[in-house]
This record gives sequence, C-alpha cells and structure tokens, in this order.
Amino acid sequence: MDAAAFLATVRGAVDARLREFLAGRVEEARRLGPATGAVAETVADLTMRGGKRLRAAFVAAGARVAGEKIPSPGTITIGAAVEIFQAYLLIHDDWMDGDESRRGGPTAHVALGRRLGEEHSAVAAVLAGDLASAWSRTLLGDTRSVWSHQEERVVLGQILDVFGGAPPSLVVTLKTTSYTVLMPLLLGLGTGPAFADRAPFLAYAHHVGEAFQLRDDLLGLVGDPAETGKPVGTDLLRGKRTPPVIDALDHGDDDARAAIEAVLGHADAPAAHLRAAIDALVSCGAVERAERRIHAALEHARGDLAAAYCDDEAKDLLVGLARLAAERTK
Amino acid sequence: MDAAAFLATVRGAVDARLREFLAGRVEEARRLGPATGAVAETVADLTMRGGKRLRAAFVAAGARVAGEKIPSPGTITIGAAVEIFQAYLLIHDDWMDGDESRRGGPTAHVALGRRLGEEHSAVAAVLAGDLASAWSRTLLGDTRSVWSHQEERVVLGQILDVFGGAPPSLVVTLKTTSYTVLMPLLLGLGTGPAFADRAPFLAYAHHVGEAFQLRDDLLGLVGDPAETGKPVGTDLLRGKRTPPVIDALDHGDDDARAAIEAVLGHADAPAAHLRAAIDALVSCGAVERAERRIHAALEHARGDLAAAYCDDEAKDLLVGLARLAAERTK
Repeated sequence: MDAAAFLATVRGAVDARLREFLAGRVEEARRLGPATGAVAETVADLTMRGGKRLRAAFVAAGARVAGEKIPSPGTITIGAAVEIFQAYLLIHDDWMDGDESRRGGPTAHVALGRRLGEEHSAVAAVLAGDLASAWSRTLLGDTRSVWSHQEERVVLGQILDVFGGAPPSLVVTLKTTSYTVLMPLLLGLGTGPAFADRAPFLAYAHHVGEAFQLRDDLLGLVGDPAETGKPVGTDLLRGKRTPPVIDALDHGDDDARAAIEAVLGHADAPAAHLRAAIDALVSCGAVERAERRIHAALEHARGDLAAAYCDDEAKDLLVGLARLAAERTK
Repeated sequence: MDAAAFLATVRGAVDARLREFLAGRVEEARRLGPATGAVAETVADLTMRGGKRLRAAFVAAGARVAGEKIPSPGTITIGAAVEIFQAYLLIHDDWMDGDESRRGGPTAHVALGRRLGEEHSAVAAVLAGDLASAWSRTLLGDTRSVWSHQEERVVLGQILDVFGGAPPSLVVTLKTTSYTVLMPLLLGLGTGPAFADRAPFLAYAHHVGEAFQLRDDLLGLVGDPAETGKPVGTDLLRGKRTPPVIDALDHGDDDARAAIEAVLGHADAPAAHLRAAIDALVSCGAVERAERRIHAALEHARGDLAAAYCDDEAKDLLVGLARLAAERTK
C-alpha cells in the first residue's frame, strides 16, 4: 500500500472513531447546559472539520514499523487521541495569535464569541482547549483513565461556573469534589488490588467535597487574609452568589438584604460597605447555618464509610482528613 | 497515626518530591530562554507556595485503604502530580476570575504581567497553566510518558514563539515536530515490543518536522485559501519572520526588501501592498529556495531510515508519509 492509500485508510478509520467518541462527549456536555454544549460542539466541529490526519497516520506508521500490518483498533484510538490533542493546541494557539480562520471556518474563539458573547470569547476558547486536552486523554484511555475523566469534569464544571445557570451543587461536584477528593482517593485506591465496592468512597467524597467548598465560601467571607492569602469579600464584589449569600438573601431581614445587595456585584464598593455586608451575613445567621451544613456533611461522610470494606484505622484516617478539609482556616 | 500527623507526613514527602521535580523542570526551561524560564518559575513558585497538600493526602489515604501502611514513593509521586494539576487549574481559574492574590502572593497572570509585560499577562498565564498540566502528567510518569514529555515541549515551544528571541529551528523542533511527527511515531512504535534503536526514527522525525513547517510557512504565503482554509499573508501582517521572509530580507534586492518591509508587522496594510510583498518573495527566489530546503530535508529523512531496523515496505511507507507531509497543498 502506498503512503496516500495508507493515509486514506487511516483517515477513514480515525474519522469514524472520532465521530463516535465526540458524539458521546458532546451529548454529555449538552445535558449539563447550553454553555458546556456550545464549548463541546466547538471542539468537536474544529476536530472534524478538515484535518489531514497526518499525525494519526504517523501513529499507524509507527505501529506498522513495530509489526502491525493493518492498524489495530487500539492504534486507531491512539491516532484519534493525537488528533484531538492537536485541536487543543490549535484552539489555544489561534486565540494567542489572534487568528480568525482555521480549516475553512472560524477559529474557536471567534465561533465561541459569536455564540456566547464577545466578552466571553477568550475564556470560552481557553476552556475549549482545556476540554480538548482532557478529551484526548479520555480517549487514550490509559492506565490513569480516572485522571482524564475527572479532568474533563473539572473543565465542564468551570464552564458552568463561568457562564452560570447551573445548580450550585452540580458545579461543586464537577469543579471541586472531582479533583479535590474523588480523583485523589480513586488514584490511591488504584495502587492496590481491584476493590470490591467503591460506592461508599464515592458517597464519602461527595460529602467531603460539599463541606470543603462551603468552608471555602466561608473563608472568603469571614476568613483571616493573613492565613488564607487572599482578601475577604472578593466573591461578593464579583457578584458571585455562594450558598451563604443565597441563604442570607432568602432569610435575612430587609436591612441585611440591603447591606448585601449594596456590594453584590459592585467591584468598587467602599471597604465600609463591604464590612457591613459581611457583618449582615453573620448577624442574620447565614454563616452559622453554613457551619451547621458543614457539620452535617461531615456526619454524612462518616456514615458513608460504615459500609466500606476497610479496617477501622483507615476509616478513622478518612474521617480525620475530612475534618481537616472542612475545618481548615486557610 | 491521626489525620493531622498523616497529613504532615504526606506534606513533607510530597513537598520534597515536588521541590526535586520542579527544580529540574525549571532548570530545563531556563536554558531555553528568559520567557520559558519566567513561566516555569511562576508555576513552580505557585505550586510550592503554601498549599495544604490535602489532595495528596487523599491519594495516600486511598493507598492506605488499598493496603499501604506507609505511603510508598510511587504514591507520593502520584500525590505530587495531583498538586501540580491543581496549580494548572488555579492558574487558569484565577485569570478567568480576575483574581489578584493566591496563597499570600500574586496570582500567576499578575506575576507574569509584571515580569513579561502587562500586555502578555493573559497569554503567559494560559501557557503557565498548560505547562503545569503537562508537568503533572510528566510526573505521573504513566505508560504514556512519551505523550506528556512531548506535550511539555509543545508548550515550551509556544512560549518561545510568542515571546521571541529563540532560533527558529528550535521553535520548530519544540512546537511542531514534537507533536506532528515525533510523538505520533513514538506512540505507534510503543504498540510493539521494545525496539532496538530509535535514533534513526528520531532523526527522521526531525527532518520531516522541518519540511512540514517550511511547507506551512509557504502555504501561508503562496497557498490557495480555498484549500488551506485561511487567508494568505497573515504571518507577514503580524510581523512574523518565517525562514522565507528572513531569506528574502537577507538576499533580496532593495525593491524586494522595501516591498516586504512595507507590510511586515502592519496589520492594516492594503491588499495591493500585501500582494506586492508576496510577489517580491517569489521573484527574489526565496520561495524557490524554501522548496529546495524542503526537498533536502526529505532526502535527509530518507537517508535517516537507512539505519533503521524495519522492513523495506515500512521504510517506503515512512518516506511516502514524509512526502505527503511536505508536499501537501493544505
């Protein structure tokens, strides 16, 4: 077979593999919301539009040298992963270079600027590249597949967070719990023999992630900047409605609501007004109620481990780490 | 051991592993140039500055559940990789959120804006995140380590390309050859048994990458936009000195030089001037000389394979693919 026929064969197989893989990922992203759908579709469009598949052909050629007369399904999958990896690089590069067309159509930042608003063009394109990067490894499906799957969830969660409209608990699960508790724990579990039942650990991770994020929200309001390393109230000034803020707006009195709304989304609010808003969050009980939710999440996490197949010392360790995650001061 | 003592033990081991790993990566990036050094140092600073290492502790806790009484070096390395992965996410998130401080110091885009100029702050921070993402997998050192090593080279090459000052051939090797020929070929070779000598394939990849990039430069000047999917002359208008442009400025007559300099770096140059500059690149012989360099690179690639341990049919295939890469029209 000459090189052109070889390339055509590889291209046919790789395009079919990509179409199948991308359809599944786009479908999943669409289910999360319109922004995640738009970003995923843009990655898929760019990946499928044109593309010589030369890189996939070099993978198949390497496999040919190593003994594969006809590219195996595994080799085609590696080739498809390299093509998605190229999409990641093209998306970030085109944005950095300010290029407007690619493969006979708009570059990702141009396409996403049209779909999600010009002001979001850069952020959406960087996230599109990050998503393509995660997808390439999901497809590669190597021994660390837990890593790439959780990485994909983080990027989807960040898209939801930036563009809004998703339930806060979904954002927390995707963008915080995934890589703060779940991925590390699953990676560690993976160092041992295959495990009977991971469900108790998944439930534990979910509750610890919830407590971790609530603590993060509280530290951003009433934490000590000398410990946390960042100023208080930035979420408020940026207009971010964290659970304690939603609670205060729902259950606080008129004075508390007015104090919070005076700074919510007002980046240039004076320091005294910010101070008053934070005082209102404390005095209306929202901070105290968040503390109780953290405590309840920790109790759930402890309960989840009851069914876990491991010794009591390991359970105590996980409970202790959950407390460190949820009761930290920085 | 209680959770706090466990966390402290893990933190000590993970910090030591990170210090050792990051020192090596930063040293290598510094050798490439000041911009790559600045970006790498910023990633390393953020990774080492503070950080509770809770995620690494969850890795070690998972390993504890799976049977490791004391975290093994392998487990500590996975934990360190997760911490660098967090740095990647923080760097991109902080830029998207416009946050200015993190862990008691400037966020990456703020630090890089100060070091490389405010106008480069966003691009440098996105690349810093991309580099951290590549590093996390380099450290993980999974079965696809060839992937992460080449990914790291791509990001370093893009930094050199964006910030300038590096020899063009180094940029081509790092940002194009790495993922266009070398990584795909090595991934394919990896599907077979360990191979006697990869050196001929590395040399082949180097020469094919050179020819591929030169063709890219030529297509951007004299290609058919209907085939390439992008307009001609954008590199010129953006002031990018590709090898054919350097050649024409060095060897063209005064008229040719004037025609090229009238548009080089002038984004708003009229179409007629751009046409005249491209005509000058052709008439002064720079395009023809680039074609000859492509031909010579292909001959080198063919020669490299003479010493390769594989059958003639596989060699013919590699030579054919090299020609497709170098003689394409899109």
